[in-house]
Amino acid sequence: MGEKLLVVNYKNYEQVLGKKSVEMTKAIERAASEHPDVRVVVVPPAVELRMVAENTSLDVFAQHTSGHTPGSRTGEIMAESVKEAGAVGTLINHSEKRLTLAEISSAVKRAHSLGLETVVCTDTVETTGAAAALNPHFVAIEPPELIGGDISVSTARPELVSGAVDVVKKISPGVRVLCGAGVKTAEDVSKAVELGTVGVLLASGVVKARDPYRATLDILAGYE
Amino acid sequence: MGEKLLVVNYKNYEQVLGKKSVEMTKAIERAASEHPDVRVVVVPPAVELRMVAENTSLDVFAQHTSGHTPGSRTGEIMAESVKEAGAVGTLINHSEKRLTLAEISSAVKRAHSLGLETVVCTDTVETTGAAAALNPHFVAIEPPELIGGDISVSTARPELVSGAVDVVKKISPGVRVLCGAGVKTAEDVSKAVELGTVGVLLASGVVKARDPYRATLDILAGYE
Amino acid sequence: MGEKLLVVNYKNYEQVLGKKSVEMTKAIERAASEHPDVRVVVVPPAVELRMVAENTSLDVFAQHTSGHTPGSRTGEIMAESVKEAGAVGTLINHSEKRLTLAEISSAVKRAHSLGLETVVCTDTVETTGAAAALNPHFVAIEPPELIGGDISVSTARPELVSGAVDVVKKISPGVRVLCGAGVKTAEDVSKAVELGTVGVLLASGVVKARDPYRATLDILAGYE
Amino acid sequence: MGEKLLVVNYKNYEQVLGKKSVEMTKAIERAASEHPDVRVVVVPPAVELRMVAENTSLDVFAQHTSGHTPGSRTGEIMAESVKEAGAVGTLINHSEKRLTLAEISSAVKRAHSLGLETVVCTDTVETTGAAAALNPHFVAIEPPELIGGDISVSTARPELVSGAVDVVKKISPGVRVLCGAGVKTAEDVSKAVELGTVGVLLASGVVKARDPYRATLDILAGYE
Repeated sequence: MGEKLLVVNYKNYEQVLGKKSVEMTKAIERAASEHPDVRVVVVPPAVELRMVAENTSLDVFAQHTSGHTPGSRTGEIMAESVKEAGAVGTLINHSEKRLTLAEISSAVKRAHSLGLETVVCTDTVETTGAAAALNPHFVAIEPPELIGGDISVSTARPELVSGAVDVVKKISPGVRVLCGAGVKTAEDVSKAVELGTVGVLLASGVVKARDPYRATLDILAGYE
Repeated sequence: MGEKLLVVNYKNYEQVLGKKSVEMTKAIERAASEHPDVRVVVVPPAVELRMVAENTSLDVFAQHTSGHTPGSRTGEIMAESVKEAGAVGTLINHSEKRLTLAEISSAVKRAHSLGLETVVCTDTVETTGAAAALNPHFVAIEPPELIGGDISVSTARPELVSGAVDVVKKISPGVRVLCGAGVKTAEDVSKAVELGTVGVLLASGVVKARDPYRATLDILAGYE
Repeated sequence: MGEKLLVVNYKNYEQVLGKKSVEMTKAIERAASEHPDVRVVVVPPAVELRMVAENTSLDVFAQHTSGHTPGSRTGEIMAESVKEAGAVGTLINHSEKRLTLAEISSAVKRAHSLGLETVVCTDTVETTGAAAALNPHFVAIEPPELIGGDISVSTARPELVSGAVDVVKKISPGVRVLCGAGVKTAEDVSKAVELGTVGVLLASGVVKARDPYRATLDILAGYE
Repeated sequence: MGEKLLVVNYKNYEQVLGKKSVEMTKAIERAASEHPDVRVVVVPPAVELRMVAENTSLDVFAQHTSGHTPGSRTGEIMAESVKEAGAVGTLINHSEKRLTLAEISSAVKRAHSLGLETVVCTDTVETTGAAAALNPHFVAIEPPELIGGDISVSTARPELVSGAVDVVKKISPGVRVLCGAGVKTAEDVSKAVELGTVGVLLASGVVKARDPYRATLDILAGYE
């Protein structure tokens, strides 16, 4: 009876670049409004972040924020910027944006110091344990070989998901676990929840769907 | 009697995060309007880019764009995004965001395919020659050891600037040269122009100035 | 009354390049022979590793090994290579060779699969906890701002060292803790041991000393 | 009628780790001795480099060297080390070890300052031109999508090879051109030479061959 969370990572799919990011968000928001018991978070690219945040009641996370303080940091994404633009959290260490351990830790601390929520992405049970030791709000385990594919992590590698849940419970019981990779159906989600996660992190399953509204609805049914 | 260009890189100084980026831009724009013969370009962080572009008549460049096409690229900055947000160009390979040679080349090609202008940043005469071979619109030579300091590259290392101008003339005569690092005064700029550049790329000299309007005016006087 | 360990990282100081690495090792070995109760490990550069291992009875570690299996990996250092050359362990994630979390975990697993010992380097209490979750043989906490300096971590930041010892005890009690940065005297070492470590990881304190034999002797006195 | 060069990159294939690197080198050396008009260079991993150099009359190159001077550089490969170990040159920026433009330039300069030959690897005509501007001894164009495959760059993309030869002639006529990727037969080599290169850079075609001696002989026949 705890928190239920769906995180939709927009990545940089052409379906979400520029103004299309607002349409995508509207579709997801519509589906979310039919499942008020699940918290739905959208994760647009940095350039689109402010525009999305200004046009939705959903919570918005950044795809990445730097662990550095403001200064001579050309090309980085400051936690201050995404917060001021309306984000309430950030992904850190996504498999397409891997960081050093020192950078992950700095990014978590900086985000927390500004009141942002953090989701640290990981690839194995071992790295999930390590990420949990940094005390982010969430860890999200995503085996890279399944990302973007057709088989869900919760179906293909249930032992990874339950292993992640167990190691987090042992190391930092307050950290909640998400899983991702290949998630496309309600069944994928309900398995993930059964295995002890609070929900899923997904991308193409919604963003590249013919009808993102319907795809989100399908996914959300898995939380019931 | 050719082009005169001033590029103001906002980096991620606290003076330009969030809504402050618009105020900063207004100040620079006011100074620019008194020197209509110089093209002034501002370079805000990615999150602030759209907001700045919507609130200025100055040309806006991004601080970095990826060489990749849209897709599974969490945390990257797509050329499509910055263009749609109002940017007309981008820095590439800034000293605080160094790329591999292959990435620089891809980023230049991608930006050009979308009609964006490109400024490839370099650190030495040799790398300026290499960057010129990639045919960006501009190269900007900035010796890292002078960046953020009090002595201008055009004063401290004039041979670097003229060497850069010469090697570019030899390899890709259509590419124009900027220089940067330590630029703070009209004299720094007029020396840079005398040495054969079309102007300067600067950051703290304007952005961290007590009065950015006046600092920009001072800099622009150097182009006369 | 447990294990006592001194790890001497040769880095790439000119004092250890080429055949000089063997002389350096002989000096350290001579000092070590006077303190048989302390295990002394030397860590030469990759190119010098085999030559050092063939000319010493001290244990030799590599400065870094890849997490990848043998294959198309130009320029990497395979765990197989360093083992075959005589190394019995490896540093991973040294502050001058930072890796992503996923790479650290892979490198630990690969090294262990070949029977190599592992020392994962970290910078803070938090990252030490994270590294401990990966179950290397050792973690070595080194605050980057003290590396190469004149004040020892055990003197300047004792709470970091004891914090590291505590978090490791909580997360992976079998992992032993080293500390490093600024270590130059017997007192630095004895403080480190008092704080719960099994010893120190150092570099310049021995390698750049006028008399490495005597410097090692001084350091080893701290273990008594 | 000029220089003819064959560069065999050992990568980190299991066939060349440890003492096997010496056997591999002996096989290649035997084939090379039957074609004294072609200069054959072998490129072992860093750990194996000294052992290979001490056991062959062939020229030995490193797979990578740092642009830094000796010092606090844990895990890097110094140009001094590879020279002292017997190497007479180095690859720089191999597709599996990409560097920033600034790093490539530093690595070329450092290697040259010690009298080492340099081969800068590139992926396109544009980056070949850029690399040529840095004045290495050689550039080696290898389209990443063909590396390790069964179709040779000189067969599949002859325009890339001739384009590389042309751009180098224009920018730095003293730089010689190699090509690589998918090279397995004498015909691949003779085409490469016809297109204006001095020869090929290859790896699996020899190193993973059932009989490296015979594979090298076959390749060398293409230079006639």
